[in-house]
Amino acid sequence: MMMKCTCVTVHAAGASGLAWALVPDIVGAFRRAWRPDPNSGMAGRGSLRKSIALPVFASDALSSVAYAPDEILLTLAIAGVAADQYSPWIGLGMALVIVAVTASYRQIVREYPSGGGDYEVASTNLGPQAGLIVAASGFADYALTVAVSVSCGAQYFGVVFPWVAQHQAVLAVIVVVALGMAGARGSGAHRGRTRAAIVYAFMSLLGVTVLAGLIEALAGTLSLASSADYQVLAETDTGLVGIAGAFLVMRAFSAGSVALTGVETIASSVPAFRPPRSRNAAATLTVMAASSIAMMLSVLILARLTQVHYVANPARYLWFRGRPVGGEFEQAPVIAQVAETVLRSPWAYVPVILVTGLMLLAAATTSFGAVPALSARLAQAGYLPKQMYRRGDRRVAAHSVVALAVAACALIWVFEANVTQLIQLYIVGVFGSMTISQAGMFRHWNGALRLARTRSARRRLLRARVVNALGVSLTAIGLVVILTTKFTYGAWVTVLLVGAGYMAMTAVRRHYDSVAGETAIKRLREQALPPRVHGIVLVSQLHRAAMRAISYARATKPSTLEVTTVRIAAEETADLRAAWEEAAIPVPLTVLDSPNQDVTRPLLAHVRAVRRTSPRELVVVFIPEYIVLHWWQRYLHNRSAARLTRALRRIPGVIVASVPWRLG
Amino acid sequence: MMMKCTCVTVHAAGASGLAWALVPDIVGAFRRAWRPDPNSGMAGRGSLRKSIALPVFASDALSSVAYAPDEILLTLAIAGVAADQYSPWIGLGMALVIVAVTASYRQIVREYPSGGGDYEVASTNLGPQAGLIVAASGFADYALTVAVSVSCGAQYFGVVFPWVAQHQAVLAVIVVVALGMAGARGSGAHRGRTRAAIVYAFMSLLGVTVLAGLIEALAGTLSLASSADYQVLAETDTGLVGIAGAFLVMRAFSAGSVALTGVETIASSVPAFRPPRSRNAAATLTVMAASSIAMMLSVLILARLTQVHYVANPARYLWFRGRPVGGEFEQAPVIAQVAETVLRSPWAYVPVILVTGLMLLAAATTSFGAVPALSARLAQAGYLPKQMYRRGDRRVAAHSVVALAVAACALIWVFEANVTQLIQLYIVGVFGSMTISQAGMFRHWNGALRLARTRSARRRLLRARVVNALGVSLTAIGLVVILTTKFTYGAWVTVLLVGAGYMAMTAVRRHYDSVAGETAIKRLREQALPPRVHGIVLVSQLHRAAMRAISYARATKPSTLEVTTVRIAAEETADLRAAWEEAAIPVPLTVLDSPNQDVTRPLLAHVRAVRRTSPRELVVVFIPEYIVLHWWQRYLHNRSAARLTRALRRIPGVIVASVPWRLG
Repeated sequence: MMMKCTCVTVHAAGASGLAWALVPDIVGAFRRAWRPDPNSGMAGRGSLRKSIALPVFASDALSSVAYAPDEILLTLAIAGVAADQYSPWIGLGMALVIVAVTASYRQIVREYPSGGGDYEVASTNLGPQAGLIVAASGFADYALTVAVSVSCGAQYFGVVFPWVAQHQAVLAVIVVVALGMAGARGSGAHRGRTRAAIVYAFMSLLGVTVLAGLIEALAGTLSLASSADYQVLAETDTGLVGIAGAFLVMRAFSAGSVALTGVETIASSVPAFRPPRSRNAAATLTVMAASSIAMMLSVLILARLTQVHYVANPARYLWFRGRPVGGEFEQAPVIAQVAETVLRSPWAYVPVILVTGLMLLAAATTSFGAVPALSARLAQAGYLPKQMYRRGDRRVAAHSVVALAVAACALIWVFEANVTQLIQLYIVGVFGSMTISQAGMFRHWNGALRLARTRSARRRLLRARVVNALGVSLTAIGLVVILTTKFTYGAWVTVLLVGAGYMAMTAVRRHYDSVAGETAIKRLREQALPPRVHGIVLVSQLHRAAMRAISYARATKPSTLEVTTVRIAAEETADLRAAWEEAAIPVPLTVLDSPNQDVTRPLLAHVRAVRRTSPRELVVVFIPEYIVLHWWQRYLHNRSAARLTRALRRIPGVIVASVPWRLG
Repeated sequence: MMMKCTCVTVHAAGASGLAWALVPDIVGAFRRAWRPDPNSGMAGRGSLRKSIALPVFASDALSSVAYAPDEILLTLAIAGVAADQYSPWIGLGMALVIVAVTASYRQIVREYPSGGGDYEVASTNLGPQAGLIVAASGFADYALTVAVSVSCGAQYFGVVFPWVAQHQAVLAVIVVVALGMAGARGSGAHRGRTRAAIVYAFMSLLGVTVLAGLIEALAGTLSLASSADYQVLAETDTGLVGIAGAFLVMRAFSAGSVALTGVETIASSVPAFRPPRSRNAAATLTVMAASSIAMMLSVLILARLTQVHYVANPARYLWFRGRPVGGEFEQAPVIAQVAETVLRSPWAYVPVILVTGLMLLAAATTSFGAVPALSARLAQAGYLPKQMYRRGDRRVAAHSVVALAVAACALIWVFEANVTQLIQLYIVGVFGSMTISQAGMFRHWNGALRLARTRSARRRLLRARVVNALGVSLTAIGLVVILTTKFTYGAWVTVLLVGAGYMAMTAVRRHYDSVAGETAIKRLREQALPPRVHGIVLVSQLHRAAMRAISYARATKPSTLEVTTVRIAAEETADLRAAWEEAAIPVPLTVLDSPNQDVTRPLLAHVRAVRRTSPRELVVVFIPEYIVLHWWQRYLHNRSAARLTRALRRIPGVIVASVPWRLG
């Protein structure tokens, strides 16, 4: 149902400007948080208070309350409207899963405080292959966090601004590009204050809504949601009984467990916390889990009390007065429906909806902040281009941010910003890496158990192992359910993306290994110096750039030196020869003939001939090059020089020395 | 009207394959034809027989019979169906214009046999500014030749294959891309035989059609075209009387004079002819003009006899039984309508239509063959990037071919492959450069007249001047008519393109002039050599590539040498130092600290410090670089080296020497 809020003149431009302002905060926080070399000391490490760390790192997890209840409701709606009443129970089950997984991650935070997160746990305990799969899932999850959060944010903004709903995919892509650009430029000037403001505004406004709703319910004044009048057409007539019903409940569990996303973010941000880091991170995890559970259960209960109906395909399965509502119908997300029903006045519920949208954009920026850190860690291990390791350079960090933005845009475009479809992909990645990392923790405890001497230590380790065993079972079941029920509906995309990422990173590592093998020195003392150096200066005319190249070449005192030119036009060469004689430079001038006004081939042939005559001689080719002032001038200079350089490099025993001349 | 030819199973794929095969021919012919340096002797010059030169260089001009009659008919149709009967008279007037312009160009061919065409005539007689305008028009004309010919070719193929008509713009763009790619790869293996076959097939099939039509007309058996039953709605009710009528006649003239396009091609291809070149080129011009006139008049007469109706906007101005034919209606070009009416059987008329389409594609390839020659001439004069002058290199020629293809695609896309609209742009460019070049010829004769001694010579020169005066008047009138009547309908695009081209080329020339001024040597003997050379070898690890760089650097015997590394990770640097001591290399190792894993800044600071300490010393920085095997590996190596090189070049007194290591 489309709410009419024409009375409220909030501008979406302002909202997106605010989201833009978020990015430097989070990028900066991650920059400070992550130091690639743990030996470089404590200097410069993070010192975030928990009250700031919660909004900075938990906004992804907390924002999932904006879509997790919706997913539970629409999965149950498959079994018809009667199944809806079980939603709070599903929510309660979900709460238990969140508790179990959070307990698991509290242990990861304590055992692996360096901020490697799932990747470190998996690669340490299960080997580099498992680590790589987790890392590839991590990249997929970052892209999906952005895609899901921004698409869902567009849904919320679309409730207030109908034109946003009409162009959801296009606007989502534009927002991702804007966030990506801001992330690529990002500097960490502030300390996540904007973000903290949004997160706490979201939590308090939602809290007020929930409180008001519960009071109304107790007072008996709570009205029904406008979607309560609609009929939900069941896709199956089994209800929730039998195997099919049990499977549907499990699917609802899995769909709702998208609330677990973002738990890992804290595990990979431990170094950003104020000491004692692990304990503070673990405490933040607990606060986050408690908040998530409280918000999700309240929303589900209120949705039940106001009889919110929410289906995956409203055009077909939502009926009104005996007819489907049709394709024009815009279904508002659950929080929007609840807020509208409880708060009644647009002046009250529109802020709730808008702050939820902003919260989702804030969650998207988390990924932009986190992806350079993961890239750097993998680059250090040789699985990504080496230069990504150098995080001191903003342009290097920008590469991974841009790649992330491109991937997120592609996902939004392909899935037309459909939150429910994107979430299927999302859960696969999240559950996949959680399952692997908790299996790693299980193994970690096994190893520790073998070394444990005292009975109390053994008991503690056994208890810890039970926590992770529970975690791995729950996430593994979720993964299997999603993969079997949703594989053909899009879950295969994640599997494909993770597989492709795994293979690409393996290929990079294999290449680096082969280069290292190829260039490894067997015996360190073996160094034969070329006995003589032959210098060649390439000139076309005798201008100051050429003269400088000749002077510099002479200054390096090669054993022999020649100046070489290619005859393109007879007059030019004659001019050059005349100037040459006038200048009386004590270096011989070689003029090469060119049949086709081609410079490269005659010069290559000449250099090869020199090499052939004296193979042990080192040849240094000096090329005068112009440094231009404007980009378009690049096309006007050095084109032959650039091509020649590329070709000369392929001749062994040749050094190409560029002698620059700055124009202007 | 859409013809139904389902019985004919000719495949368009075959046709486009044939067109593809054309390109190497024509590119090769132009390559052979054009030699940038007239001093390089006669070796390698062209020696095309007239019978081959006609199809190679005149296909552009001859193919215009495929659209010129259409333009005359649709312009007259503005005054209603009654005006159509004047079309043969317009054709006769056009024939006179063609004769006059051809006579002018016969004189250009004789006076400027080097193949510079309009550009040479204008720049020699009217100065470089005029030459540049003509050159810019020339580029615009090449792009428009491609756009018009391919769009019109798609119209002809569309008569036979309805799906071509439905996707005219997309297919035209695809064909241009294909022709451009073939042109960029082009080699001159054959001698234009494919092209000659198409041109002669076109001329003979059209001749047979015309002959059959005239015989039928004499025998009284000629039927009416299927469009004869349609009514043409007049846009004006003035008919052809009064000022408006006179203006319409002049517009019809101008539109039909698109038949003049391509005349200049022969003028800029004189060196390709067999000696006596000028005389053979002039003879070919005459044959071409005679063929053009004969074909155009015959088509116009037959169109009149069969009462072909042809309008610019059939959906609105073509009526059938009192109602507009509507947007679905596909209007076949005039030659297709005439051929269908005269030849009756699809087995007879479909080949005529297809060969006309092929003829148009052949005309498009002319531009791809010609554009590198014009680019090279302008590059030689410093108006385009220097490297374009080196035509021996196929990749350099490919640049202008690709630029042409891009421009043609843009034109097709913007004007949706609308031939009539594109022709407005086309005529402006063609008439513009013809007017300027003939004004140049007028001045040329003035100059010659001042030197003429004998009365007979004066008489000859005066006669020649009259010819060009007639030419310049006719083309200038045409230009004014088109510019005034069609400026807002698209003619401004050509004016804009020519203006932009003129300004870009002026900017390039100004840049080259300023560089030449900046690097010019005032006193040739002044050469101070840097007294000492300080060598710096950059290494990260002590592998074989680094060792080679060190050996090479030592071989160049600099006054002082150091090996420099940046400490990114403490262990790596420790490893390097250990290996360094083991290797006992007699060069000091400098280790620079980096706060942010950044390599560039510490190294730049170090090099600047070295320069500051001894400003007169030359610094040579040796950088080991990997030469990779596959494109994707490029992203895995040398990224820091490349950035460092760019930055180092901006420090005066620094030479960057790259020491390559080939992988694999």
